Amino acid sequence: MEFDKGLLIVLSGPSGVGKGTVCAALRNFMPELVYSVSATTRNKREGEREGINYFFKTKDEFEQMIEQDQLLEWAEYVDNYYGTPRGFVEATIDQGKDIILEIEVQGALQVKQKFPHGIFIFLAPPDLEELRNRIVGRGTETEETINNRMDVAKEEIELMDNYNYVVVNDQVAHACESIRAIVTAEHLKKERQIAKYRKWLREV
Amino acid sequence: MEFDKGLLIVLSGPSGVGKGTVCAALRNFMPELVYSVSATTRNKREGEREGINYFFKTKDEFEQMIEQDQLLEWAEYVDNYYGTPRGFVEATIDQGKDIILEIEVQGALQVKQKFPHGIFIFLAPPDLEELRNRIVGRGTETEETINNRMDVAKEEIELMDNYNYVVVNDQVAHACESIRAIVTAEHLKKERQIAKYRKWLREV
Repeated sequence: MEFDKGLLIVLSGPSGVGKGTVCAALRNFMPELVYSVSATTRNKREGEREGINYFFKTKDEFEQMIEQDQLLEWAEYVDNYYGTPRGFVEATIDQGKDIILEIEVQGALQVKQKFPHGIFIFLAPPDLEELRNRIVGRGTETEETINNRMDVAKEEIELMDNYNYVVVNDQVAHACESIRAIVTAEHLKKERQIAKYRKWLREV
Repeated sequence: MEFDKGLLIVLSGPSGVGKGTVCAALRNFMPELVYSVSATTRNKREGEREGINYFFKTKDEFEQMIEQDQLLEWAEYVDNYYGTPRGFVEATIDQGKDIILEIEVQGALQVKQKFPHGIFIFLAPPDLEELRNRIVGRGTETEETINNRMDVAKEEIELMDNYNYVVVNDQVAHACESIRAIVTAEHLKKERQIAKYRKWLREV
């Protein structure tokens, strides 16, 4: 781990939790972050731009990227490939800039194998707290509903164990503030600070 | 480490760095924190109140506290004892509230032996950056001045290694924001979050 590099930040969580909405809000809230651009084989939609929304690839090109280990993570959804090009991410952190990836849970696990020192943030639905309030506070749910929800909750909790931080997406603005605090704190960790000072002393 | 307890936060750093000023500003900036009150054998000054500014003790009382391991850290300055009573700190974190201790470097090392999982924040003087700017930017200092400052800088950097975070006290407001981000991020760590969720699931 080199401490003059930027941070690799992964924002992930169960599907439907609002990762995209939070990441879109972060672009205004944290313009100092670089936002990773995915590669995809799906067709370009009206208004989408190459290198801004996606890097648009043919199926052959994408499969070549997989073979040449040019993707930090990838998956196939509805007959199309989606993935995170490694080159852009590495170039960004090498320049000392922080980059954020908004990806699915399976992709986050892939990235973790390649960047174990990344900052992995699990975006959690506020359901768990709601669940508790409903059960503890009112007791109006059927036992089956409660059990189903409990099972989903338990699975989500097990997933969290792969991450460094858990941010509850109760309100988008609140989630953004939490993410900013995490990024700020990570930069203040003594390992990074000491490395920075030592580098200066060497330069003097 | 129990995750439903509050955080024990230690703010320390070299003498003269402005720990007291930052901690006074934090009282307004983070009123949700509990501020540890030190015990001392020095005389009460006009306007000081027992349990607010200090717990005022006789020398015999203080030495009894030392013998009975009732102090998390203590030291003698100018013929008076100063120390942090353990009971108040433990009662606060047992209630799930975060407490902050503003103490000298030697005291911080004592606390770390008793609370290795505390959050240790080193408040650093902005000198290191200034030093670099002076040397790199202008080269107007004498070699002796530079060497002296370099030696002090190196000692400070070695001290940092005992801490979790380094906050540069360039501006009091900026230091307060950094400390708030650290406390927020520490609460979002997955270990704490998972423990909280598991506790709820057990309670349901």
